[in-house]
Amino acid sequence: MRFLPKLERKFRHWRKLKKSPLLRKLDEFCESVRKQGFEQTSKESVHSLKSDEKKEKELCYKRREQFLYNGSFHEAVGNVLLIAQCFAMMPVRGVTAKHPSSMSFAWRNLRTCCCLLFVASMLVNLGLTIYKVLVGSITINNIRPLIFKSSIVVVCLTALNLARKWPELMMDWHRTEVDLPQYQTQPEKRRMAHSIKMVMFVGMMLSFAEHLLSIISAISYASFCNRTDDPIRNFFLLTNDEIFFVLDYSLPLALWGKLQNVYSTFIWNYMDIFVMIVSIGLASKFRQLNDNLLQFKGMHMARSYWSERRTQYRNICTLCEKMDDAISLITMISFSNNLYFICVQLLRSLNSMPSKADAVYFYFSLIFLIGRTLAVSLYAAGVHDESRRSLRYLHCVPKDSWCPEAKRFAEEITSDMVALSCMKIFPLTRKLVLSVAGTIVTYELVLIQFHEDENLWDCVNSSYS
Amino acid sequence: MRFLPKLERKFRHWRKLKKSPLLRKLDEFCESVRKQGFEQTSKESVHSLKSDEKKEKELCYKRREQFLYNGSFHEAVGNVLLIAQCFAMMPVRGVTAKHPSSMSFAWRNLRTCCCLLFVASMLVNLGLTIYKVLVGSITINNIRPLIFKSSIVVVCLTALNLARKWPELMMDWHRTEVDLPQYQTQPEKRRMAHSIKMVMFVGMMLSFAEHLLSIISAISYASFCNRTDDPIRNFFLLTNDEIFFVLDYSLPLALWGKLQNVYSTFIWNYMDIFVMIVSIGLASKFRQLNDNLLQFKGMHMARSYWSERRTQYRNICTLCEKMDDAISLITMISFSNNLYFICVQLLRSLNSMPSKADAVYFYFSLIFLIGRTLAVSLYAAGVHDESRRSLRYLHCVPKDSWCPEAKRFAEEITSDMVALSCMKIFPLTRKLVLSVAGTIVTYELVLIQFHEDENLWDCVNSSYS
Amino acid sequence: MRFLPKLERKFRHWRKLKKSPLLRKLDEFCESVRKQGFEQTSKESVHSLKSDEKKEKELCYKRREQFLYNGSFHEAVGNVLLIAQCFAMMPVRGVTAKHPSSMSFAWRNLRTCCCLLFVASMLVNLGLTIYKVLVGSITINNIRPLIFKSSIVVVCLTALNLARKWPELMMDWHRTEVDLPQYQTQPEKRRMAHSIKMVMFVGMMLSFAEHLLSIISAISYASFCNRTDDPIRNFFLLTNDEIFFVLDYSLPLALWGKLQNVYSTFIWNYMDIFVMIVSIGLASKFRQLNDNLLQFKGMHMARSYWSERRTQYRNICTLCEKMDDAISLITMISFSNNLYFICVQLLRSLNSMPSKADAVYFYFSLIFLIGRTLAVSLYAAGVHDESRRSLRYLHCVPKDSWCPEAKRFAEEITSDMVALSCMKIFPLTRKLVLSVAGTIVTYELVLIQFHEDENLWDCVNSSYS
Amino acid sequence: MRFLPKLERKFRHWRKLKKSPLLRKLDEFCESVRKQGFEQTSKESVHSLKSDEKKEKELCYKRREQFLYNGSFHEAVGNVLLIAQCFAMMPVRGVTAKHPSSMSFAWRNLRTCCCLLFVASMLVNLGLTIYKVLVGSITINNIRPLIFKSSIVVVCLTALNLARKWPELMMDWHRTEVDLPQYQTQPEKRRMAHSIKMVMFVGMMLSFAEHLLSIISAISYASFCNRTDDPIRNFFLLTNDEIFFVLDYSLPLALWGKLQNVYSTFIWNYMDIFVMIVSIGLASKFRQLNDNLLQFKGMHMARSYWSERRTQYRNICTLCEKMDDAISLITMISFSNNLYFICVQLLRSLNSMPSKADAVYFYFSLIFLIGRTLAVSLYAAGVHDESRRSLRYLHCVPKDSWCPEAKRFAEEITSDMVALSCMKIFPLTRKLVLSVAGTIVTYELVLIQFHEDENLWDCVNSSYS
Repeated sequence: MRFLPKLERKFRHWRKLKKSPLLRKLDEFCESVRKQGFEQTSKESVHSLKSDEKKEKELCYKRREQFLYNGSFHEAVGNVLLIAQCFAMMPVRGVTAKHPSSMSFAWRNLRTCCCLLFVASMLVNLGLTIYKVLVGSITINNIRPLIFKSSIVVVCLTALNLARKWPELMMDWHRTEVDLPQYQTQPEKRRMAHSIKMVMFVGMMLSFAEHLLSIISAISYASFCNRTDDPIRNFFLLTNDEIFFVLDYSLPLALWGKLQNVYSTFIWNYMDIFVMIVSIGLASKFRQLNDNLLQFKGMHMARSYWSERRTQYRNICTLCEKMDDAISLITMISFSNNLYFICVQLLRSLNSMPSKADAVYFYFSLIFLIGRTLAVSLYAAGVHDESRRSLRYLHCVPKDSWCPEAKRFAEEITSDMVALSCMKIFPLTRKLVLSVAGTIVTYELVLIQFHEDENLWDCVNSSYS
Repeated sequence: MRFLPKLERKFRHWRKLKKSPLLRKLDEFCESVRKQGFEQTSKESVHSLKSDEKKEKELCYKRREQFLYNGSFHEAVGNVLLIAQCFAMMPVRGVTAKHPSSMSFAWRNLRTCCCLLFVASMLVNLGLTIYKVLVGSITINNIRPLIFKSSIVVVCLTALNLARKWPELMMDWHRTEVDLPQYQTQPEKRRMAHSIKMVMFVGMMLSFAEHLLSIISAISYASFCNRTDDPIRNFFLLTNDEIFFVLDYSLPLALWGKLQNVYSTFIWNYMDIFVMIVSIGLASKFRQLNDNLLQFKGMHMARSYWSERRTQYRNICTLCEKMDDAISLITMISFSNNLYFICVQLLRSLNSMPSKADAVYFYFSLIFLIGRTLAVSLYAAGVHDESRRSLRYLHCVPKDSWCPEAKRFAEEITSDMVALSCMKIFPLTRKLVLSVAGTIVTYELVLIQFHEDENLWDCVNSSYS
Repeated sequence: MRFLPKLERKFRHWRKLKKSPLLRKLDEFCESVRKQGFEQTSKESVHSLKSDEKKEKELCYKRREQFLYNGSFHEAVGNVLLIAQCFAMMPVRGVTAKHPSSMSFAWRNLRTCCCLLFVASMLVNLGLTIYKVLVGSITINNIRPLIFKSSIVVVCLTALNLARKWPELMMDWHRTEVDLPQYQTQPEKRRMAHSIKMVMFVGMMLSFAEHLLSIISAISYASFCNRTDDPIRNFFLLTNDEIFFVLDYSLPLALWGKLQNVYSTFIWNYMDIFVMIVSIGLASKFRQLNDNLLQFKGMHMARSYWSERRTQYRNICTLCEKMDDAISLITMISFSNNLYFICVQLLRSLNSMPSKADAVYFYFSLIFLIGRTLAVSLYAAGVHDESRRSLRYLHCVPKDSWCPEAKRFAEEITSDMVALSCMKIFPLTRKLVLSVAGTIVTYELVLIQFHEDENLWDCVNSSYS
Repeated sequence: MRFLPKLERKFRHWRKLKKSPLLRKLDEFCESVRKQGFEQTSKESVHSLKSDEKKEKELCYKRREQFLYNGSFHEAVGNVLLIAQCFAMMPVRGVTAKHPSSMSFAWRNLRTCCCLLFVASMLVNLGLTIYKVLVGSITINNIRPLIFKSSIVVVCLTALNLARKWPELMMDWHRTEVDLPQYQTQPEKRRMAHSIKMVMFVGMMLSFAEHLLSIISAISYASFCNRTDDPIRNFFLLTNDEIFFVLDYSLPLALWGKLQNVYSTFIWNYMDIFVMIVSIGLASKFRQLNDNLLQFKGMHMARSYWSERRTQYRNICTLCEKMDDAISLITMISFSNNLYFICVQLLRSLNSMPSKADAVYFYFSLIFLIGRTLAVSLYAAGVHDESRRSLRYLHCVPKDSWCPEAKRFAEEITSDMVALSCMKIFPLTRKLVLSVAGTIVTYELVLIQFHEDENLWDCVNSSYS
């Protein structure tokens, strides 16, 4: 089932059709100029390009420069990191620079300070939450805010650590990328960047919609419980109950809590998106190699061709391992968080909802959660799927060209397990989807069978947020 | 355990014995003529066949033409698809044509329109069902009609999509088949087609019996509940409860509901049969190759022999992958549906039955369900088993003939995982049977241990259909 | 953990020490004579053995002939089958003949008739049992006699079918065995036969002890319930409750029931023992090959040596597959039966026992059941373990002798999965022990956690036997 | 996740910084002298070292001798075994000797006698415990002391058996080690010994802390229950309840019970530490080989280089198998014990604690238990991880140096499963962590869902110790 990438491809196609005519013309013009250049090269004749032609081309290139893609991961991921930095994550300087060597990390930087400030503020909030949980009873539903907030703190710290290693990692990507067989056309080079942007865009939109719905649901619930006369106060008392369990109500505190809540929600969604983006990057590098293998599929290739491809494959594998080491803690937290929240939501699903707004929010949130978990699993599994696909082309090597180098290449693909993993404990492949689904279904079956209404929605012991 | 194919083989043997003497004679005659032809070729001598002999042969061939098999999947599956088209599925033109290139798909075709009409009508019915479920309480038993009907809709749409790709897929089959080592005798060529017909026939008969029993059981149950004085009305009120929950009773509506029910039941059974048929087709192609390998087992073969076999094996693998991509959604729905319905039936098995008719229907239906699931699993696993069997013949290659091509063949079989799959999440092998059995037993154990009679058979909140 | 084979080996050692001095002397004498013969051959000198020496040897050989082992499976398994035939199983003629070609199967044989008679009588009993179960309530505990008796019937029929194929299978063994590198000394040749006899002896003794305890327990329980004044009648009423539930009490019927019970118990134990014995046979054939590989470990061997060993290894694999096909239904029933009975016994273990005798029987029976299951698993896993051990010797082939034949041998061992299996669904390896243990522990945990005393030992609804 | 080894490395680094300046100077001096020696060798010129220089070196070597490491496992594990001997385990003579050949085992040795005495005394205690358990009701919580004590007895006996084989095993290690490529610098040689010492130290400290807390908790609990007026008597009555359930209270008996308790606690912790230490040893041998492969990564090496490395790899594999055979019973008991105790503690975690001291002890003990289990799993998995790492360097062999020997090396690593195991039933790899975590989470979920307070902390039926 590759419906997610398919959806994406269709969307891209639709965008191309809707593209502004001006941009399209520019595109076509440059494309034709580029082709001319190619034809000249292929004819192997040296034409003296007149000065005005050159000028025109230069102009065109300058104007187009900012629209041209070189197909690197650094370039594709730049804006995604920029957005993350607005929410106190990944404080690296120069994420949108042309070349990865321009990036750097420094502790005495505004971004880093913001990040540390947020972590500190989050730790205070976490302390209040722990206090509230310990005073009450510990159930699988009540520890929800505790798990949510501690995950956020751990992810922030991991991201901080990752930011320190990020410039070095991007240089590794760069070295691997320049060595790979290059795409010739702009659409091919643009592909990965567009996939990443689409995932970021759709993920953020859905997460925004979910947050809005959560606010509406909270307002409706707050008015239902009606602790005080002030509706705004009711809302903040409900959503920041861990703060006002200890302290008296005050608007600044409420706003501080709300801001934290917004940031946390972003980070909570961003960690899943981040895993997806890295997976897309790695899978697209394997696809770049596979596209080259596909181009020469079944042809008689020299030994050196296979030896070169094998080295490139090996380089991507090494890159994959390095990225896995760097982000596996985030992957781990993302997966366990998703599983835990799905289980909790399923537990709540058996109770009657106090209002329509709650029901709508609840079901949207549950479907969003399951969809996000599936998306992370499938995109992460894409790395493994893409890495195995090379074997298919090696099986089509004709009898006479079957050299030791091709054989070694095939054996290495067979014996290697190339995939992102959760702390190297289990690889992220499509089988994982089965395990996840199996776990959820088993849990749900047990729940349904032995269910007694526990009234998780009462006003006093509310574990809302 | 290969008892299913064995059963089949025995049945075939029995049929052969019971075959009308006329047909058998014709068979023998043609066989002898064909042999003569062979002998002449083998002697490499050119005899001038007399004109009357020729005529006789021509006559014979013309008469026999419609009975002769070429052993292609397209030919074997033709009638099966024709039956499916009577029940608004797989609207492809020319399914019974001699050559797959005659097939085509068109939107402006009667079959396609029928199919779309049925889907539309089914969607209306589904809407009514959803309404009834949402108004009542959601339990694992109550959502049964919902899951049943939504599966039917999804399968219909998938089949429509598959119909569009079918002509192309059949051409792929054709290209692979003509390249394979051919069988020499009619019985060998007929084998696959007969297996497919047997599966279709037995499956349809059992499904028909189950439907009849379900009607009898419903009549008995309707008279037990006795809502009105009219027994026919009672029956329709019971079996179409989702319609008359919203609308008033009227005979046309009741008939519409019944027709839908008949079609749905057929499609529900057909999806399992379809997966089995495709599995038989793929497995028999691997068997065709294996039979050739078996013929030359342990002999000294040329390098080119192994190289050719390897390419053919590769082609079947590619075909297998294409078919898997095309039908994996149907496989997925078939499997999850079967598992869900077995669990629901087991849950109901603990309650006391209101009448003998219900008990007979219930146990027949449960056994039919489990048998069907096992049959799908075993036939689907047959593809993998057959694909691995080639390795056995490669192990018997004598020392002196062990060439790089044979080695490469063996290595590719070892490193490949050739099998149908559920959305590429898990392959359909014999281990699956264990997982399925394990799941069912675990669920049953939990059920028995904690069972309290929930009276699922009461008249008011009936979730009968 | 190889404690079972170890135990065996120790026991064998102990037996050797305790062997009667006469037999030992005879042994030593013949051994020395055999050695002389060898030395003469090694010296490659032709001595004219005097006539009296020759005579002496001939005499000795004739006397010893019946004690000498040729190390074949047919010879080792002869007595085991003979015992089985006393209990209406495996009706093959000539099981104790010197050569497997003397064996035959015939329908018109006393043994076969006995076997068919027993099956018929068992089917009547099964019918009565089904009637009693259907009248009562169906729980996991009540269907115990039903499952027990239907297993016995299926095993008997499978054994009958196996008996038909047995002469052919033994010829396959024979052909494989004569081709293998032969052991030189009597103790080595005797090893397999002794293992098999030990397993048979210990298994039968334990099963006999268990049956005695069961009778004692039944007597004590019968006196506790005290339906009538006659203790013998009470006993038979209890142990044959399925008969006297329908018919009135009469002594012949009671004796018929008891006889059936004794036969069933034997067969129930014998099927496990049979799986173990076949496993020992196959494992010892692999060991015979491995012992030869060990002997030449690390030496420089010719290409032909490896080619020969590979062919022999392949032959044993083929034999293993054939045996697996023949007995896999018995293996399946044996395993599922053991698992089911362990679960039922664990369920009963939570109830208080009515008397000491019951408690002793109960715990002895539970431990015997678990021990037997473990023994079957470990012996069956031995085939796989032994088959993989060859790889270890191939890893020690020195650099210069590493020829393509050795490579092919190593690759085939790596790519093959040689093991007995349950209907080819899952192979019997050591991992199975984990799954079995896991299943039992999980079930026990669930039981303990949610246990309510269900009084399974009451007199009226007794499900004793 | 390799945080444990990382932590260790950081700790080591910190220790290096804190090292006394004197020792560091000595270190530097010797290092420089050693380097001089090397330079002289590398220049291949023979300098006549003056007599005073020689003397100085000799002096330095003598003084340093006791600080110098040769990097052998025997040397590293010496002190660890010495400590174990103080607690009646592993009675081998000469564990701290320079050379493993000095070690020996004798039955008529003080250590062996101590060990046997302890086992005998433990068996008496175990008998009393069995009596107490059988009189009371058998629940998962009540059989805790039974399982604890029987594990201790089995581990002691296994250790005794291991002690007999230990001198031979150490000679195997020695032979493997001298053949491996040697480290050149002291820090590299010291690495393994330091890891082992750290694990021993941290493990013992935590176990000591846990025991202290357990005493405090028991005192608090004893005063809460208050059976008699004497607090000391109360304490002993509580912690040795199995003794005073049968016998009257007396101080000598109480002290005997306490001593046994201390010894048992040590052994209970030591078995986990022992598995970790052996794992560190084996993993570090693989690392030693890998470090050599890393050094020559990507270079053009001779065929003999690969052949030599392969033999060395094979030797470590064989060693690994031998060690696995020797300690797999201890591994088994360690794992099952940990899992059982975690489950029991989780079951208790749902009850309210009688006092703060109990709560602190309880949570410390639970976290210690989980941490210890994780540590054992990760260290044991390290052997497998390290053994697979060689493959990475083989993938980087350049095209021209890719010889049959390198190929064979790669194939053997791919086809082998090198890891410690539990009785060869399942290998200890990182996937195990997932299974363990999954089991715990499932159990906890079931517990939480169906929990009813069972008051496991009542005074009368206390199952405290």
